[in-house]
Amino acid sequence: MTASLRIAIAGLGTVGAGTIKLLTTHAGDLAKRCGRRIEIAAVSARDRSRDRGIDVSAYRWFDDALDLAGLPEVDVIVELIGGADGTARELLERAIARGKHVVTANKALLAHRGTALARMAEAKGVQLGYEAAVAGGIPIIKTLREGLAGNRIDRVYGILNGTCNYILTAMRETGRDFADVLADAQRLGYAEADPSFDVDGVDAAHKLSILSGVAFGCEIDFAGVHVEGIRQVSALDIAFAGELGYRIKLLGFARPTEAGIEQRVHACMVPVGTSIAHVEGVYNAVVIEGDFVGRNLCEGRGAGAGPTASAVVSDLVDIARGRGQPTFSVPAAELRRLPSAPMARHRGAYYIRLMVVDRPGVIADVAAALRDQEVSLESMLQRARSPGEAVPVVLTTHETEEAAMRRALDRIAGLDSVTEPPHMIRIEAL
Amino acid sequence: MTASLRIAIAGLGTVGAGTIKLLTTHAGDLAKRCGRRIEIAAVSARDRSRDRGIDVSAYRWFDDALDLAGLPEVDVIVELIGGADGTARELLERAIARGKHVVTANKALLAHRGTALARMAEAKGVQLGYEAAVAGGIPIIKTLREGLAGNRIDRVYGILNGTCNYILTAMRETGRDFADVLADAQRLGYAEADPSFDVDGVDAAHKLSILSGVAFGCEIDFAGVHVEGIRQVSALDIAFAGELGYRIKLLGFARPTEAGIEQRVHACMVPVGTSIAHVEGVYNAVVIEGDFVGRNLCEGRGAGAGPTASAVVSDLVDIARGRGQPTFSVPAAELRRLPSAPMARHRGAYYIRLMVVDRPGVIADVAAALRDQEVSLESMLQRARSPGEAVPVVLTTHETEEAAMRRALDRIAGLDSVTEPPHMIRIEAL
Repeated sequence: MTASLRIAIAGLGTVGAGTIKLLTTHAGDLAKRCGRRIEIAAVSARDRSRDRGIDVSAYRWFDDALDLAGLPEVDVIVELIGGADGTARELLERAIARGKHVVTANKALLAHRGTALARMAEAKGVQLGYEAAVAGGIPIIKTLREGLAGNRIDRVYGILNGTCNYILTAMRETGRDFADVLADAQRLGYAEADPSFDVDGVDAAHKLSILSGVAFGCEIDFAGVHVEGIRQVSALDIAFAGELGYRIKLLGFARPTEAGIEQRVHACMVPVGTSIAHVEGVYNAVVIEGDFVGRNLCEGRGAGAGPTASAVVSDLVDIARGRGQPTFSVPAAELRRLPSAPMARHRGAYYIRLMVVDRPGVIADVAAALRDQEVSLESMLQRARSPGEAVPVVLTTHETEEAAMRRALDRIAGLDSVTEPPHMIRIEAL
Repeated sequence: MTASLRIAIAGLGTVGAGTIKLLTTHAGDLAKRCGRRIEIAAVSARDRSRDRGIDVSAYRWFDDALDLAGLPEVDVIVELIGGADGTARELLERAIARGKHVVTANKALLAHRGTALARMAEAKGVQLGYEAAVAGGIPIIKTLREGLAGNRIDRVYGILNGTCNYILTAMRETGRDFADVLADAQRLGYAEADPSFDVDGVDAAHKLSILSGVAFGCEIDFAGVHVEGIRQVSALDIAFAGELGYRIKLLGFARPTEAGIEQRVHACMVPVGTSIAHVEGVYNAVVIEGDFVGRNLCEGRGAGAGPTASAVVSDLVDIARGRGQPTFSVPAAELRRLPSAPMARHRGAYYIRLMVVDRPGVIADVAAALRDQEVSLESMLQRARSPGEAVPVVLTTHETEEAAMRRALDRIAGLDSVTEPPHMIRIEAL
């Protein structure tokens, strides 16, 4: 048998501990699958005394993660510290510079510096593994980069944040509002104390920008992602969505268009008959549309110790087997720099919910505002009657341009009889 | 750039033509992804003059596929002839013996001779690629063998035959019976003139036996698969399933049990709230349950020129990149020979539909037959009333052993008031 693959793990939080647990639990089977053992040579974390539910006494300990990069006996650095900059970045750059393979679960770092890191890794002839950075346990990077390598990818989209999907699922099932359900999710450990990273769509946007790079062979462009979260989704909109035959999901979409790469993360309505509408709770799902393969959907847990450890180890198995490939499907030197398509040019259908004073003529004013922007109405729904009071009115439009929709909404918001800012949710036919 | 990977394609039917189309359409992108070009050096088929919608005049032509194995300039033989024996088998064996990599879409051959072929290939140090043999465009072999390599796989199940799924979906949507819908499917090209291979579950069983080998690191045991098809599924049962909160799917299941590997293909009822219940039409889906990753589902087109070509080419890309691995996740020499768990020992819940004469005491007789086998009733439903005539009665049971259920059904079938053989469909909680 070939010599062991020796790894050093930086960061012993949930994922780091899960990775050690996996590597020790399945050491024998992994050796068969790899043709060699995977050996943990060193670990690093801030607090040595913390109880992590695993025994780390057998591994060389370093208080400073950066010291791992200098260990001559280590083949791979596994970075599980996190953060778009700081130690994580410095550790990866030093490790690559010293000719070590690196494996990371760090989506923020890749979203901001993925292209540069890929260039560095390829220049040094080492692998940069990041399966764990996108969609947790779903091997979506391998699927895109290798499994569907025969295809031109036309579109990638998916549910990329389990916290948001959990909240939206619970809102639909219980009829409760966002703030309530978020508080529950925080108690259950499905949402962080500061949830903004998840619920404002930033985490999903990080992952989407990485998927774009792999799918379209282009430089990672996180700044080009249009990002919205789910704070503004109300129980009322979820109920109306059900009535219209939709479910509300936070989706990330990426596709090449004539105006550049369109990348957008926002809540949207998807038809209840689609597979992705039934991906519920903490699950993630990614749909890939390829010219030969057609539509492929992968669903699985998007976070947590076990799924993320599974992804980290799949990268280690590839490295142990000597299986290499360009970081983002084509060599980093050949990644295209593509403009980002402006969201104002996006075309789609829209759901608009207004709170209007229930009196004659209101709908005529709203319809005129849409007509003047050449936005074509598909349906109008006013269930409640309460003369003189504010009642919800729901409109859906045919496909139109976002900029026109925005102009119409501005005018509608200014109408006397409209009592609060319009709620807009995009409708995706999929 | 490294020298081209030179391939020879045997069999120019739908998939062969699709593969050539893909390789020529994406030649430039593939070269970037592989670091070298994939070059078609030779082709073989029975009829040179047939119009395949592609130009094959540039390739060396052989009437006899076996001649391809002898070409010294060829690195990979792509076998798209099909059949569990005959030319396909001889070609693969000869090619491997001559040290050539092989790629095949031939599920029947692998189900019957997969273990032996894997041993031959590994002894010669060549790759045996078969991504296209299971679930068409879904890269499920790569996902199982590499993407989830960190896991002990506890269960694999899925919709493995698009023809059956199309028929069952159309039956549910139209309320029509099997024979009617099959005739339609034949007209539309979704079912063969002789549909038995698909509708009797054999094709799904081939694929399931291959998945078992990869998932559990065991020798392929097609003979150990319990196989039933969908001919006996009636429109009435589909309607009752809907009423009970289920959809009927032809699923293949495989898992290790204390009694050996359980492998079974049959129609079953799955809860309408599960993702797999919503995989409709010609789509396939495979669920993998791993100890660290949890549940993963992959959905995509299970057949057709494009998806199958996509799978064939993913194997070629791996070979072009020099990415190797054991054929069935662990080296063929280490594959375990596991006994097959007898279906009589299977435990599960059951749906039973009887046609009974509508008179007092009938249900008591049926209930007594179940009680005597210690089968516990979960629900009973008799919608129609028609005194003295035959009416349907539906029973569902709690979990019980298949052997006990069979004994109870035999006794029920013999009751005077039961007018036709009981219809039994297994219920899967998933």
